[in-house]
Amino acid sequence: MRKLRQLAAVIRHHILTSSTAAGSGHPTSSLSATDLMTVLFFAGFFRFDVKHPKYHNNDRLIFSKGHASPLFYALWAVAGGFPKKELNTFRKFGSRLEGHPTMDFPFTEVPTGSLGQGLSVGVGMALSAKRDKLPFKTYVLLGDSEVAEGSVWEAMQSASFYGLDNLVAVIDVNRLGQSRETAHGHDVRAYARKAAAFGWDVSVVDGHSFTEITGAFKKALRPAAGGASTKGKPTMIVAKTFKGRGVSFLENKPDWHGKTLKQEELEKALPELGEVDTSVTETLKRPRAIAARKDAPHKATAVSYTKGEKVATRKAYGNALVRIRAKYPHMAVLDAEVSNSTYADGFKKQYPKDFFEMFIAEQNMAGVGLGMWRRGKVPFLSTFAAFLTRAHDQIRMAQYAGAHMVFCGSHAGVSIGEDGASQMGLDDMAMFRSILRSTVVYPSDAVSCEKLTEAMGAHEGVCYVRTTRQVTPVLYDNDEQFPLGGSKTLRKSSRDAATIVAAGITLHEALDAYEILKNEGVLIRVVDLYSVKPIDIKTLKKAAKETGVVVTVEDHHLEGGLGEAVASALAPYAATVESLAVRKMPRSGKPAELLEYEGISSAAIVKKVRQIMSGVPRK
Amino acid sequence: MRKLRQLAAVIRHHILTSSTAAGSGHPTSSLSATDLMTVLFFAGFFRFDVKHPKYHNNDRLIFSKGHASPLFYALWAVAGGFPKKELNTFRKFGSRLEGHPTMDFPFTEVPTGSLGQGLSVGVGMALSAKRDKLPFKTYVLLGDSEVAEGSVWEAMQSASFYGLDNLVAVIDVNRLGQSRETAHGHDVRAYARKAAAFGWDVSVVDGHSFTEITGAFKKALRPAAGGASTKGKPTMIVAKTFKGRGVSFLENKPDWHGKTLKQEELEKALPELGEVDTSVTETLKRPRAIAARKDAPHKATAVSYTKGEKVATRKAYGNALVRIRAKYPHMAVLDAEVSNSTYADGFKKQYPKDFFEMFIAEQNMAGVGLGMWRRGKVPFLSTFAAFLTRAHDQIRMAQYAGAHMVFCGSHAGVSIGEDGASQMGLDDMAMFRSILRSTVVYPSDAVSCEKLTEAMGAHEGVCYVRTTRQVTPVLYDNDEQFPLGGSKTLRKSSRDAATIVAAGITLHEALDAYEILKNEGVLIRVVDLYSVKPIDIKTLKKAAKETGVVVTVEDHHLEGGLGEAVASALAPYAATVESLAVRKMPRSGKPAELLEYEGISSAAIVKKVRQIMSGVPRK
Repeated sequence: MRKLRQLAAVIRHHILTSSTAAGSGHPTSSLSATDLMTVLFFAGFFRFDVKHPKYHNNDRLIFSKGHASPLFYALWAVAGGFPKKELNTFRKFGSRLEGHPTMDFPFTEVPTGSLGQGLSVGVGMALSAKRDKLPFKTYVLLGDSEVAEGSVWEAMQSASFYGLDNLVAVIDVNRLGQSRETAHGHDVRAYARKAAAFGWDVSVVDGHSFTEITGAFKKALRPAAGGASTKGKPTMIVAKTFKGRGVSFLENKPDWHGKTLKQEELEKALPELGEVDTSVTETLKRPRAIAARKDAPHKATAVSYTKGEKVATRKAYGNALVRIRAKYPHMAVLDAEVSNSTYADGFKKQYPKDFFEMFIAEQNMAGVGLGMWRRGKVPFLSTFAAFLTRAHDQIRMAQYAGAHMVFCGSHAGVSIGEDGASQMGLDDMAMFRSILRSTVVYPSDAVSCEKLTEAMGAHEGVCYVRTTRQVTPVLYDNDEQFPLGGSKTLRKSSRDAATIVAAGITLHEALDAYEILKNEGVLIRVVDLYSVKPIDIKTLKKAAKETGVVVTVEDHHLEGGLGEAVASALAPYAATVESLAVRKMPRSGKPAELLEYEGISSAAIVKKVRQIMSGVPRK
Repeated sequence: MRKLRQLAAVIRHHILTSSTAAGSGHPTSSLSATDLMTVLFFAGFFRFDVKHPKYHNNDRLIFSKGHASPLFYALWAVAGGFPKKELNTFRKFGSRLEGHPTMDFPFTEVPTGSLGQGLSVGVGMALSAKRDKLPFKTYVLLGDSEVAEGSVWEAMQSASFYGLDNLVAVIDVNRLGQSRETAHGHDVRAYARKAAAFGWDVSVVDGHSFTEITGAFKKALRPAAGGASTKGKPTMIVAKTFKGRGVSFLENKPDWHGKTLKQEELEKALPELGEVDTSVTETLKRPRAIAARKDAPHKATAVSYTKGEKVATRKAYGNALVRIRAKYPHMAVLDAEVSNSTYADGFKKQYPKDFFEMFIAEQNMAGVGLGMWRRGKVPFLSTFAAFLTRAHDQIRMAQYAGAHMVFCGSHAGVSIGEDGASQMGLDDMAMFRSILRSTVVYPSDAVSCEKLTEAMGAHEGVCYVRTTRQVTPVLYDNDEQFPLGGSKTLRKSSRDAATIVAAGITLHEALDAYEILKNEGVLIRVVDLYSVKPIDIKTLKKAAKETGVVVTVEDHHLEGGLGEAVASALAPYAATVESLAVRKMPRSGKPAELLEYEGISSAAIVKKVRQIMSGVPRK
């Protein structure tokens, strides 16, 4: 206990000095959790080889309350993970020690700072461990304020459903939020009741008592006591703590959130910690040497469709998942309880161990996928395109993780028909395009969908495959290639009146428009823009130059969609781009009625081309 | 009870026939909740004047499980709300009876269909009732599958925190989801435990026993029993039901989700309901005649800043809230526990009754705001721009409600500095622009921020005000006007080498770039594009024509942001647009360092202008 007390004091010292040096940060939120984390790290619970942070059987710690980064960095410094003097670079431009933990720092599991996301990531890691039969444990530190986020309760439910007895969460109940007291204040029993009702084992502790904290971790790590009938449970440690603990004028005081000490305040605070040896380093317990699961990749079987055959791209996505499993033996398929609509259910039947039912909880699905990626999996996540918006913030954070995750949004656009607006994905391309280093593909037939899904499995970053509910004819030969950033020019002549750029359902409308216009003696160019991001600027520039006008047609809102992607790519080149997109409140109806209503049908394209040919001056 | 039994049979008849006529829809999910809703409507609980659906003291019913629309429509038809023969138009193009309830139907409170959102809307309505001292009750019907959504638990917590004893929720535990059994199956106690832990009064009932259901509603509507120390509690009725109830070959059977009966199956099913009189209509209990709260609007006081004075736009937003309260006496201010950062806290201090702390639960905040709007309030909702992405799906649904809601996202862009990427709003404009009929404003100084916030209060649709953390100098006189769809040309000459279009922090960079270039004898045009949507196409066209090149500069990702808004608006006119935007992974650092790093600083603008002037050919 004495050693722990000394270490906690050293850590507090680093928290205070590094944040004062930075001039911004969250020392008080760090101080409340210091004793909890000191025990986890240095009382022999946490197993980690600091020389090999990527070792597959290291325990994992996710700081869901990412603003407590001064504590996070201090812990790893004391554990010998990196030189202590680097703590003084905290929050400075170019430092690995950013305001909230990022991937630049080798001990960060995933970047945090958007609250309420860490537990889902922990669920993903603990599920990976179960799947791969690895004994490492996953720990998640939560703040009490963030427990208001629904995503936490999605994760709670998920962890309980999967019996994740290798997952330990700690809530640092320090009572004080940013601007006020939390809803529950210091009522630790309220948190305990909720966690228990969600099927977790719960320990309530004094978060500043080394004895109580030690007891709780010991209990959490006990092998499951129950017999065959007892499913393992995840553990929640609810800890009553004080914000600013250790410094009398900070402790349990409001208005100190996110504030650092001035130099003179620091000088008053430090003596309260007693004498500390800031050079002290303490070794973490070693991880167990258990071999990682290894599965050699094999070639995926070939795609096999017949040109003209009618297949929905969502079905092709499902077929692809099964087909490419051999190529990506570490893939994991997650779905938000609509696998019979997204067609992820084929994979579920063939590879039940690698299919994870996430129920109707998209935020948690995305977080779990992120955690699985971090543990070496290639996650494919599917639901209706519309409902992926639910996970926007999780997807936003995944971009900062540099995560490779493949999202598939089915039921894109008004062409889903009778179900109506609530089920139509109309801003999904905008969302995924706005993610840094993301890839957005929008296949128009089964062959391209299969090939692109396969490519996404070996790509990088946040990848998005947009699929269509309706069946559409197969357009391509089975050996056609679809490079990212490419496109397919399907109709072309030397006297095209305009270029129609489309993808998905509207590409078929464009092809129909081509036939109608051809009968009138008018030729148009038709481009399948299957790769919306990156975009085939070369073909677009050429088409604009050769045909004068580019017309985009999409089953999506204009803003941020295919039309703006094309307009934006061509913007530096003084090209003329006109756009057909969903601009009216959509409603229930037959797919064809709705394409017509929104002005994105073959008839609308024909009308637009005639208008262009009539040469109404635009300036 | 006999009457209820007959009415339930009639409603089941309508459910089956209308969905078979449509050829799609969710009859089985409707049948499970039929008895629950029949009792609510026709056993004297639900008070509603069907001739005046907008009457302010009607009880309110939100079908959070919107796919049970056949039941919803049948209930209102039997209650005399509209002609029964219209039920046969269900899901047809042009019908008011869409696949999921929409605003075309006069008894829809808010459109539903994206699961897990209805309870938040109910919380907003019940809170409005409390605020306005109206005795109406709010009822929410939830499916069991949607209870996996975290947003439900955000709403549960919020209802309990505010002691909403005027809110009654019913969970239709029919065990079967879309593709499989739910996590809890028929374990109604599991739901009950969770709801009780979240501070609700809970009744568990057989959802097909009129006696038990009646008992539960009676208990829920009893005046609060407790003394002064007991805060009122919301009520949750957990009902064990069977999907497809009433038809032997549907009841409790998997694989019937979202499927309708074929004509021959319908003919087999209907006789099982016994003899029904489909012409029957039943009157609902009348609402109480209580006067609505009326507050006459007054003029807002004048804006008062000094040109050159340094004020953050986020501070101006907060000032505006207080200033315009007189003009919008029914405004409600909601914040996600960062009111001391968004500066909504000034309003909180002055008008505590109209400030609603939503804690860190953005989804629920948006849903509550939607419910408040529907009850006549003008909701202003604030948090960090980055965290509004959390509510993307709720905002998406708000567009279909035609809701007028004002969102304010503070801490936009990399210019927030040291806190790092997780806290930076970099795709918020993309998100809000992609919403139909939305308005996006991005003020650059305190005067425009105040004026635009004031204008948003009287505008319509989903409105977004983007604010900046850093202080910036006041640019405009206090009497300057800022019409929507306008812009301000701040620097202009007859020989401008290019036009810089910016807003927010980058406008000030553009003004600095102007000075640098002017010293070199180069003039540029500078446009403050405070209205990003709608956009000032006239000024942009003129600038493009007169200066040759338009350069956009924004503290936001390119995709869907200000740059693409401009590119998209100018696309039909063969203009040349180049864009500076955040394109690199942001990190911690000083605001100026980060603007530089991302290439959106005054230096980057100067460099771009010089490049344009050097005339490197682009084609």
